[in-house]
Amino acid sequence: MSYGKVAIIGLGLLGGSIGLAVAEHLPGVATTGYDADPAVRKRAAERGLAGTICESASDAATDADLVIFCVPVGAMETAAREIAGSIKPGCVISDVGSSKQSVLNALTTALPGAPVIPAHPVAGTEHSGPDAGFASLFHHRWCIVTPPENADPAQVETLCDFWSALGAKVDTMSPEHHDLVLAVTSHVPHLIAYTIVGTASDLEDVTRSEVIKYSAGGFRDFTRIAASDPTMWRDVFLNNKDAVLTMLQRFTEDLTALQRAIRVGDGDTLFEHFARTRAIRRSIIEEGQDDARPDFGRGDHD
Amino acid sequence: MSYGKVAIIGLGLLGGSIGLAVAEHLPGVATTGYDADPAVRKRAAERGLAGTICESASDAATDADLVIFCVPVGAMETAAREIAGSIKPGCVISDVGSSKQSVLNALTTALPGAPVIPAHPVAGTEHSGPDAGFASLFHHRWCIVTPPENADPAQVETLCDFWSALGAKVDTMSPEHHDLVLAVTSHVPHLIAYTIVGTASDLEDVTRSEVIKYSAGGFRDFTRIAASDPTMWRDVFLNNKDAVLTMLQRFTEDLTALQRAIRVGDGDTLFEHFARTRAIRRSIIEEGQDDARPDFGRGDHD
Repeated sequence: MSYGKVAIIGLGLLGGSIGLAVAEHLPGVATTGYDADPAVRKRAAERGLAGTICESASDAATDADLVIFCVPVGAMETAAREIAGSIKPGCVISDVGSSKQSVLNALTTALPGAPVIPAHPVAGTEHSGPDAGFASLFHHRWCIVTPPENADPAQVETLCDFWSALGAKVDTMSPEHHDLVLAVTSHVPHLIAYTIVGTASDLEDVTRSEVIKYSAGGFRDFTRIAASDPTMWRDVFLNNKDAVLTMLQRFTEDLTALQRAIRVGDGDTLFEHFARTRAIRRSIIEEGQDDARPDFGRGDHD
Repeated sequence: MSYGKVAIIGLGLLGGSIGLAVAEHLPGVATTGYDADPAVRKRAAERGLAGTICESASDAATDADLVIFCVPVGAMETAAREIAGSIKPGCVISDVGSSKQSVLNALTTALPGAPVIPAHPVAGTEHSGPDAGFASLFHHRWCIVTPPENADPAQVETLCDFWSALGAKVDTMSPEHHDLVLAVTSHVPHLIAYTIVGTASDLEDVTRSEVIKYSAGGFRDFTRIAASDPTMWRDVFLNNKDAVLTMLQRFTEDLTALQRAIRVGDGDTLFEHFARTRAIRRSIIEEGQDDARPDFGRGDHD
């Protein structure tokens, strides 16, 4: 591993998990960590989320070979400006944000001349904060590295090797393509889940308690998605606006067609659509992205 | 238990699980089973899904104290007509369908004079067929019993006791109210999941393989829901049309509002909405309907 020191800016679920994962998988690599919230810094020190918890971002970034910004995508530019005078030449700048074109622009603007190679580990839970991280978060999960066109191939390879060492499967693509892919696999599903959970809680004729009791019928999975960090997701939607709006338009067209089929009683259209989506589920199980066991092995837990 | 013999018509996931659950929890109760598909009857006999697998629905229903129809809701009336001449006086007619007003009408039309008490165990997996059932499917799950206004209270109580004996938590409400509650907790979430999975598979700029690889970002949970039995769900939407269309209208209004907030860059509206939906997730965990562990304890499985 060619990084001697990695600085982690932002010590929530992702940042904390990176620190713990480096300690476990790359014990020769030093880590420094910083979070703008003093309470988070205190908790991060207690949990040992980084080797050294610093009192400023510039302290954390000094002498680092890699700085990873683990803050909401809307906070990237401001956070990056704080280290502008502190990084050494050749220090690679990366992040873990869920949208990549806007982050590339923000980091390049804040740190002109520094090599920026954004990345997005597709891993997470609905929990957030310094208590949420764990060392195995990235195991067998994809990490998408999105180098700009002028990136140094050797620096890209080193960053890919770093994520592989933390247990991730690594893929590379352009920031533009990443944003389109994630709009459909993540951003629009999150927006839809946030919407339906809100719709359900606003009903007059159905009590909140009934919605909760009978959530096992499908709604439960939506509530898990809709419990994700509000700040992070606000920023994702504002920063991947074009791709999200394009995908939402297509979704709405498709939903309208199925709604019409229900209204006119067109069972064949419904059946054909539902049979087709089943095949995609089978592909995901074959790809190893999920578990074929009924109920995900949740079993009886209450 | 006041039932000496229970007949199960339809031996898929639900019917098979009832047979296995009765054998485990109510060993003194005899079961008969029938399925219109000879291959399913054969497999049901091999797995012992009922004490006796019969060659006709009327044979299965003869002398039964309770007949439970476990067929798609669109097939209820036809299936019920087959036993019209065979049931003994006082035999209670029930089912496990996901919509209740239409089923009450269908069973009452097919079996005039027989006491019909519909029920809906809110339990299931995305698997279907005679190999999918297991005895503990109903453990700690809700079963909603929806008696018509003129139902005999003693017969309702006996049916509730039966479901309790299989491990379910039992609630009662009117068929109309059930259909409204389930439209929001189950039917509309399923339709939305079916829609977005279809939308994703139709994209030109994103390959099917990319959608599958990066499904951990939220899409994965939708594919599980969208892998449910197509025939069953076609019938649910056609038979709970009014409540589903009402809820869809509300969902679309709410989605349009969030879409507009994204378009105009209104971060406050997004944040407030997302923060509100988090609370609902917490209530569901407190209610014991789901597991607070990250990733549902799926862990690393690939």
